[in-house]
Amino acid sequence: MKLATYKDGTRDGQLVVVSRDLGTAHYATGIATRMQQALDDWGFIAPQLQDLCETLNHGKARHAFPFDPALCMAPLPRAYQRLSGTAYASQAETDLAVYQAASDQLLGAHDHLVCANENLGLDFSAEIAVITGDVAMGASVDDALEGIRLVMLSNDLTLRHVAPSVQSQPTAAFSPVAVTLDELGDAWDNGCVHLTVQVAWNGRKVGMCDAGTDMTYHFGQLVAYASKTRALRAGTVVSSGTVRNAGVEKAGKKEWPKGYSAIAEKRAIETILDGQAATEFMKFGDTIRIEAKGKDGQSVFGAIDQEVTPLKA
Amino acid sequence: MKLATYKDGTRDGQLVVVSRDLGTAHYATGIATRMQQALDDWGFIAPQLQDLCETLNHGKARHAFPFDPALCMAPLPRAYQRLSGTAYASQAETDLAVYQAASDQLLGAHDHLVCANENLGLDFSAEIAVITGDVAMGASVDDALEGIRLVMLSNDLTLRHVAPSVQSQPTAAFSPVAVTLDELGDAWDNGCVHLTVQVAWNGRKVGMCDAGTDMTYHFGQLVAYASKTRALRAGTVVSSGTVRNAGVEKAGKKEWPKGYSAIAEKRAIETILDGQAATEFMKFGDTIRIEAKGKDGQSVFGAIDQEVTPLKA
Repeated sequence: MKLATYKDGTRDGQLVVVSRDLGTAHYATGIATRMQQALDDWGFIAPQLQDLCETLNHGKARHAFPFDPALCMAPLPRAYQRLSGTAYASQAETDLAVYQAASDQLLGAHDHLVCANENLGLDFSAEIAVITGDVAMGASVDDALEGIRLVMLSNDLTLRHVAPSVQSQPTAAFSPVAVTLDELGDAWDNGCVHLTVQVAWNGRKVGMCDAGTDMTYHFGQLVAYASKTRALRAGTVVSSGTVRNAGVEKAGKKEWPKGYSAIAEKRAIETILDGQAATEFMKFGDTIRIEAKGKDGQSVFGAIDQEVTPLKA
Repeated sequence: MKLATYKDGTRDGQLVVVSRDLGTAHYATGIATRMQQALDDWGFIAPQLQDLCETLNHGKARHAFPFDPALCMAPLPRAYQRLSGTAYASQAETDLAVYQAASDQLLGAHDHLVCANENLGLDFSAEIAVITGDVAMGASVDDALEGIRLVMLSNDLTLRHVAPSVQSQPTAAFSPVAVTLDELGDAWDNGCVHLTVQVAWNGRKVGMCDAGTDMTYHFGQLVAYASKTRALRAGTVVSSGTVRNAGVEKAGKKEWPKGYSAIAEKRAIETILDGQAATEFMKFGDTIRIEAKGKDGQSVFGAIDQEVTPLKA
């Protein structure tokens, strides 16, 4: 099933179920009003949401309405925990690392990227993110995989000109909808999402990386790592880190044929090839669009589509 | 006023108001059932809680019951964000740093410190913590101070034998009650809490540090630092870092007359004085008690009183 959270002026929004083709939606009122409620009591609530979703997919839901991704908050608008991994790090380069990240205000897919200052080096990062249920302390990789409830796309923001700190990682935005694993079909395989993450910056396609092929540490490993010394509670968001495909040797020269999912990646390539980075970070008015399509060509999670804007006085 | 959260089998518990002397309590039902609710709508809800608290303090609340700190969850049992500062770092040593910390399950004052393994180097850390309301991006230090709603004691846990990571900072425990600034009277001064934090490890008094005198960066500075590039949302917990008093020179030798608030501090002193650390970290069965008393000798926040226990299979 596909779930989203509609803006309603509150901090948590209203839970809605969304049809497979993202065409229609239906309030989940009567089952659960907030996403966290569903996560807190998943075993009881998820089957009811699933039933409503099926009715909606069959065009038989009585109060269905056209789904508008611009009205979405993050599927989980504020989370009790967000963890950010380095799943695409080459194992030779670095061990798995998982960082605690801000989760008090996660951005909706069309929310502006509000930045105090254009010169902070605002960078996007196209990532896959999951939301877990309760995961016990010391969970195995298999237990950890069992604990994964929902999958989303994420744009994890970094201010590259700010020293690494809570100041440099302001927040992240998420796709309009979060989907259950069964909704991904074959694309979900052993903790990896085999979908191409399309990234368009100012309307220009810059990234077409496959999220599955080069994932060094899959989501089961990320979640198990994080739960080694403590339980994770329902509603923990775990992000993959920047989706990246390995470079290939071509005529003795390294090439990155799939493009990039973060400007920092592009700059790193420029530095290798040309001795210095030429591409600048995002400016006010820049747009970033992140989307993934299934085999049928349809958008799986809806698109993240954001614009960088200054902080209003 | 003084607020606490009573265990009721749910993830968020039941909000109660507590009398100044910690003798009696009263459910806040009818005003707010959960602490986060009160924080989300503080301007509207706090005055009503305040009224109930006054009635309780005057012995006139009709359904008052004896307050039992053993039944308390953390005042905010799960938070959308926890930030951990280094407020007692000597400015010469290091700049202010604020870290994102786990907040999906904050421990109650009498909850066991469940540890997977006795050899992980479990260390306590006696700290002051605040809970904020909404704080705007780019808040001044004064704005940040205005945003502070409640003050608590905290025991922030670290596994010293685990490499610094999400694995080494499992969670934190909090005093039974959280108090508003007015409740602290003169002890709250410009973002510092002028109270002695008493630490007893296995019944032996090991720390008597004053939380006010050597706070290099006060809470207004911590909160302003954290909100430099993003807004902080209501319910953000900010911890001070280990409460510490500066050492003094005595007969040419440095001494730490106020004791220590974390075992790592004691070990650092041993290393300076003797060339190596002798004190071991906590073991199963160890107890840790953290409390602060007002001028009148009464416990301000109630005591954190925990025992280290193994993970049950």
